[in-house]
Amino acid sequence: MPAKPQFRVGLVQMAMSTTPGENVDKALAKVREAARTGAEVVCLPELYRSPYFCQKEDAALFDLAEPVPGPSTEAFGRAAAEAGVAVVVPIFERRATGLYHNSAVVIDADGEIVGLYRKMHIPDDPLFYEKFYFTPGDLGFQAFDVKPGRIGTLICWDQWYPEGARLTALRGAVVLFYPTAIGWHPSEKVEHGADQHSAWQTIQRSHAIANGTYVAVVNRVGHEIPPGGGDGLEFWGSSFLADPLGVVVAEASPDREEILVGEISLPRIEDVRRNWPFLRDRRIDAYAGIDQRLLDQE
Amino acid sequence: MPAKPQFRVGLVQMAMSTTPGENVDKALAKVREAARTGAEVVCLPELYRSPYFCQKEDAALFDLAEPVPGPSTEAFGRAAAEAGVAVVVPIFERRATGLYHNSAVVIDADGEIVGLYRKMHIPDDPLFYEKFYFTPGDLGFQAFDVKPGRIGTLICWDQWYPEGARLTALRGAVVLFYPTAIGWHPSEKVEHGADQHSAWQTIQRSHAIANGTYVAVVNRVGHEIPPGGGDGLEFWGSSFLADPLGVVVAEASPDREEILVGEISLPRIEDVRRNWPFLRDRRIDAYAGIDQRLLDQE
Repeated sequence: MPAKPQFRVGLVQMAMSTTPGENVDKALAKVREAARTGAEVVCLPELYRSPYFCQKEDAALFDLAEPVPGPSTEAFGRAAAEAGVAVVVPIFERRATGLYHNSAVVIDADGEIVGLYRKMHIPDDPLFYEKFYFTPGDLGFQAFDVKPGRIGTLICWDQWYPEGARLTALRGAVVLFYPTAIGWHPSEKVEHGADQHSAWQTIQRSHAIANGTYVAVVNRVGHEIPPGGGDGLEFWGSSFLADPLGVVVAEASPDREEILVGEISLPRIEDVRRNWPFLRDRRIDAYAGIDQRLLDQE
Repeated sequence: MPAKPQFRVGLVQMAMSTTPGENVDKALAKVREAARTGAEVVCLPELYRSPYFCQKEDAALFDLAEPVPGPSTEAFGRAAAEAGVAVVVPIFERRATGLYHNSAVVIDADGEIVGLYRKMHIPDDPLFYEKFYFTPGDLGFQAFDVKPGRIGTLICWDQWYPEGARLTALRGAVVLFYPTAIGWHPSEKVEHGADQHSAWQTIQRSHAIANGTYVAVVNRVGHEIPPGGGDGLEFWGSSFLADPLGVVVAEASPDREEILVGEISLPRIEDVRRNWPFLRDRRIDAYAGIDQRLLDQE
């Protein structure tokens, strides 16, 4: 089947409750709503089924994980087939006893699982204690064919690494999805909040520009206080879709649940890449060393 | 000698006349002026010694090229030593009969040549016919030590490639200089001008963010009509300095000659990289394929 020249993506910006079942039901309803408004590929936020539990290290929270296939893929497999929409479902993946990943499952519009991405770059910072929970992915940077087109999935911290975007785009993805859970430390927001948000949007727009692809970023909203108390994290929403020149063509609010729907246009990609032919001129003979930690040994 | 914790850079945004000697004299005066206002490393725009001659393909224009060492390095070597300032001098380099590069010479504050960078990514687009004039560089991505600190040089079209910025930063550069000659086609400016400028600033800010380095971009100004007539190119100025979080800390006008002076702060780099530790988490085991043209063979 030839690729469609245009298709629409739906970005589900939502807030999470502490009850997984409620989050699943809400996300299912939003996927159906996105499909009704024309979306053909819908993406949920990172770890959509729970609050962002990585604010503390607690071995009991591994109970939140689920296998693939498992509850999320079964629920969204049915919903995808019923609504005729492909879905990117980010999950806390239980791969084996003591082996967990921060993953995204790609379900096609017929309900079949067509892809699994495991977050490659794992952060670890105050209140983002992800290295405790998630083994770094071992499936590499991939692109997946769903009925509307070829898509790429990366997750949150991956967004800071041009290499991940490049490799996914070189595999033919026309849109890079970044399900995300990023927010402000309330104590930093006044002084650093605007610069942090700007850096985050800027680097993801840059992946669109460097590669001539769309970039779709899906964040959560809400101020989540962990069970033990504390300032918590104020997730900054602001989900957005950037076109292949990095133009933000749709953007959500910082604090409300929203479904953004925007168009992926292959003719637009064609036009941008013809006029800004960056892929033509890459110096693939001269990138040795990029697989080194630092070039301080020469 | 230990690196200085802070040093100041000078970005010379200027317009060019058709007489090379006038451009040299003007640039020398601006280097001295930048030094007087505190700059310790000064950068000129790409191909500072002439109008942007690549608007047409004319073999006679190879006469504009000069060797290294040559007139530019001699003039700026003296000026650098007299003013006690390091200078990045972008030149049209004649390497041998029939072999030319778009290069940047790094001259230290004692007047000695300490580095040569040859533009790696060469564009070729209407009115930017660079592949006719310049052989792609064969010296790779480098960093150079000048007395104030360790700097990197890249040139114009290189700015669209995250790989070049990454490799230069991995070699220890704390500021990436991008001497540049970019402008609008007047016929496109109304419809596309703002988006083009935004993409250009965005991707260079992203190099600062991804690598935790400063980025200093030095463009020319002026509407240059080539000798044969035509709409020419309206160079958009807007030289800027971005800090390691991508914040634009100094920015010039789109249409006037200016000298921007801004600070490179190693403590600021330390702080940003501690709080956004992107270099810690690179997946150097998983970047294979980035040296391929496209990953369409698998």
